[in-house]
Amino acid sequence: MAKDFTKREENYSQWYNELVERASLAENSAVRGCMVIKPYGYAIWEKMQAILDKMFKQTGHQNAYFPLFIPKSYFEKEAEHVEGFAKECAVVTHHRLKPKSNGEAGLEPDPDAKLEEELIVRPTSETIIWDTYRGWVQSYRDLPILCNQWANVVRWEMRTRMFLRTAEFLWQEGHTAHATKEEAIEETKKMLDVYATFAEQFMAIPVIKGVKSPNERFAGALDTYCIEAMMQDGKALQAGTSHFLGQNFAKAFDVKFMTKENKIEYVWATSWGVSTRLMGALIMTHSDDNGLVLPPVLAPLQVVIIPIAKGEQKVKVDELSLKLKAELESKGISVKYDDSEQYSMGWKFNEYEFKGVPVRVTIGARDLEKGVIELFRRDTLTKENHSVENLADRISALLDDIQANLYSKALSFRQAHTINVDSWEDFTQKIEQGGFLLCHWDGTAETEEKIKELTKATIRCIPLDAEAEEGFCVYSGQPSHRRVIFARAY
Amino acid sequence: MAKDFTKREENYSQWYNELVERASLAENSAVRGCMVIKPYGYAIWEKMQAILDKMFKQTGHQNAYFPLFIPKSYFEKEAEHVEGFAKECAVVTHHRLKPKSNGEAGLEPDPDAKLEEELIVRPTSETIIWDTYRGWVQSYRDLPILCNQWANVVRWEMRTRMFLRTAEFLWQEGHTAHATKEEAIEETKKMLDVYATFAEQFMAIPVIKGVKSPNERFAGALDTYCIEAMMQDGKALQAGTSHFLGQNFAKAFDVKFMTKENKIEYVWATSWGVSTRLMGALIMTHSDDNGLVLPPVLAPLQVVIIPIAKGEQKVKVDELSLKLKAELESKGISVKYDDSEQYSMGWKFNEYEFKGVPVRVTIGARDLEKGVIELFRRDTLTKENHSVENLADRISALLDDIQANLYSKALSFRQAHTINVDSWEDFTQKIEQGGFLLCHWDGTAETEEKIKELTKATIRCIPLDAEAEEGFCVYSGQPSHRRVIFARAY
Repeated sequence: MAKDFTKREENYSQWYNELVERASLAENSAVRGCMVIKPYGYAIWEKMQAILDKMFKQTGHQNAYFPLFIPKSYFEKEAEHVEGFAKECAVVTHHRLKPKSNGEAGLEPDPDAKLEEELIVRPTSETIIWDTYRGWVQSYRDLPILCNQWANVVRWEMRTRMFLRTAEFLWQEGHTAHATKEEAIEETKKMLDVYATFAEQFMAIPVIKGVKSPNERFAGALDTYCIEAMMQDGKALQAGTSHFLGQNFAKAFDVKFMTKENKIEYVWATSWGVSTRLMGALIMTHSDDNGLVLPPVLAPLQVVIIPIAKGEQKVKVDELSLKLKAELESKGISVKYDDSEQYSMGWKFNEYEFKGVPVRVTIGARDLEKGVIELFRRDTLTKENHSVENLADRISALLDDIQANLYSKALSFRQAHTINVDSWEDFTQKIEQGGFLLCHWDGTAETEEKIKELTKATIRCIPLDAEAEEGFCVYSGQPSHRRVIFARAY
Repeated sequence: MAKDFTKREENYSQWYNELVERASLAENSAVRGCMVIKPYGYAIWEKMQAILDKMFKQTGHQNAYFPLFIPKSYFEKEAEHVEGFAKECAVVTHHRLKPKSNGEAGLEPDPDAKLEEELIVRPTSETIIWDTYRGWVQSYRDLPILCNQWANVVRWEMRTRMFLRTAEFLWQEGHTAHATKEEAIEETKKMLDVYATFAEQFMAIPVIKGVKSPNERFAGALDTYCIEAMMQDGKALQAGTSHFLGQNFAKAFDVKFMTKENKIEYVWATSWGVSTRLMGALIMTHSDDNGLVLPPVLAPLQVVIIPIAKGEQKVKVDELSLKLKAELESKGISVKYDDSEQYSMGWKFNEYEFKGVPVRVTIGARDLEKGVIELFRRDTLTKENHSVENLADRISALLDDIQANLYSKALSFRQAHTINVDSWEDFTQKIEQGGFLLCHWDGTAETEEKIKELTKATIRCIPLDAEAEEGFCVYSGQPSHRRVIFARAY
């Protein structure tokens, strides 16, 4: 057990912050709200990127790159969009520094280098991209456009937390253009499915696919689809969104095309994104009081082999260890053989446990004599002995098992913390315990806002698979036709 | 031959701009000096990234991510560094927009959201990274730190050209920290070798490894190593740099460590980078009056198969084409079978030729009867017939051949345009014809600046393999001990 490490029960939020720092995932930088993603954290993000990128390409998308800066006037063109982002954006006003004019040491923005029009550091790229698409689309033959961009974006949040909410973050944003409404909606849903598959099969995080209430929609969207996950403290985390933008941006940026029937029409749009926020979801879904727990497919290091031997015995241990390492690597498993003498065995055990390496193999000289090796799995913190024979096969199976176990554990947790709530009294009590409350809602923004004000709970989504069910709004008592998910959220 | 496409001889610069746009590599954006990298251009960059990233990891480096913004005061800490970048940087001064106070429509920076300290959009990350490294290094055990970052950077250049010089560009920047001077210099040279290997083996661009004169050094470096390439117009292009930074940044940011001998010392630094500028080098080294020419290992699409058949014949052609496609793909070759009916054959031929697809395979019904297929190679614009048997093997060999041919062609060109020049008169004449002039130089910044002023030529580098040779400076007549490379440069 890691020393001086806050337990989840004591203070979940502090546990999270400590974990991020101590597992060397990230740290706060000197720049307000911006984090440094450290090599170990970035290695996990890279694995996530690689898998997502492949899934995007398999669904016909190509990567491109659009400018970091957005002219202020572009930003103003879509009314709801600017309303959503103007209050939290970094504004570039000058393109040069000069020595201070008051004679003091240091630099100041050069008044002669003031920009005629301010530039906004992109908080999202719909505006600059739709301005570009105008030049790419003339006829239906030019459609669809299926682009994705891996980029950094900036939203000047007042309260930041590493990975979950930072002023600058890394993400991908897909922006597609279509000839018909139906095709755009299909694309929106397809990408939601890609995100759900990624979350469940790779991150081992069960998610609920749904659609946002109008209040929670992306600024400028007609519909926002999302995947919602439940963290171990019972709070919800929006893990990905896919927006059907209608013709809003096409109208704002005058992007029209000639149909097969020779008519001029506005183009239909979607956008969809996931960000480094997913790192927060990963941490808060699986990790424990001993540190990070990683699903094997995303672990930068999947197996660590630690020898317990000295002198002549070490030669034999080395031999077996390196043979095992080679065998595992030939199966595509990443392995480190740590026989460094800089740190003690205890230190190593703690370190790899804290960093969430899924399987630890300890090879001692005495074990070798017995022909039995100790395997430790990080998810359950349990040990097993296995014969030297077929050891690589056993480890490979163990990794699969850990991946499956993490998912089913998270799913059981969510199921245990998802309940139907039918009275306001019940709601106000149950919301304090966390979890997803499935409730009837009258469909009005007023009720939604009132509930948020009173309980800090929001509608996470209207699940796509919500069954028709007649009932009465948990707050207003008005009639309702299906249940929605209320929860407090990150 | 592409219609209305400027020839290199007519106007090299215009040929370049037209090529970049018409091959769908990039386009200028609405934001001054910033470009949009289009999917086809980005696909080439992605291939370059993947290869480089692998090479960095093989040499022990890890990726990380540091903030986009640099507080102005950090920027000021290394005197030469700030001098080099202050005149061309984007300055963030506000974090919010608000409706205009004069009642007009539109937004303006909110005076209440003025930053206490301005933030600079990174032009390079030494300052923010060395501020971070201070927290990572206590003892020699924490060294070396071998980090790389893939990122966007902004330098507010006044005259921009797509890929070659843009206000925002994409790059990687390696930043390493070492316990000794020797180790840091070794790292600097190692990464220069990585760049040279990448340029020659993957980009098919021969480069000269050298060291910059003090005038051309990176702001803050003790030594700047570089690889220099020659473009088809005889101008030089700096394709990558690797800097030995000494202890400058460690001193500016107070990064010290305890040595094995329990002494406190400053850490030694290197940084090294290549950028989307390499795309410009790639284009200007190989392309021709028919459009883009790509080395096969970097071509997003390596082979295109175009059928010439209709009706029943098409069935047979399809069958053979798809079999060939599968065979090529099993060899790791990317292939497109273009039997779309939207465009004519002539259009397709032109399109793939202009986009630099290395090999075109035309499969006609009549050819099938004869058992002979036409192969067209983009580099030499020549055709050959090959029997249906072993066709995939032939194509695979052809791709290797094209890769090798592009390199040797570029090498021959450079050799033919590299000459020894020993008199000032000769220099002023020869420099007009382009190419590399190998000259004696007296080693002074004054002479270098004078030559630049008179001829626009700069010292590209002092080649690492320059042989000792006594002589006299081509401009001043002062004694010199080796030749350096003068050229006009991008």
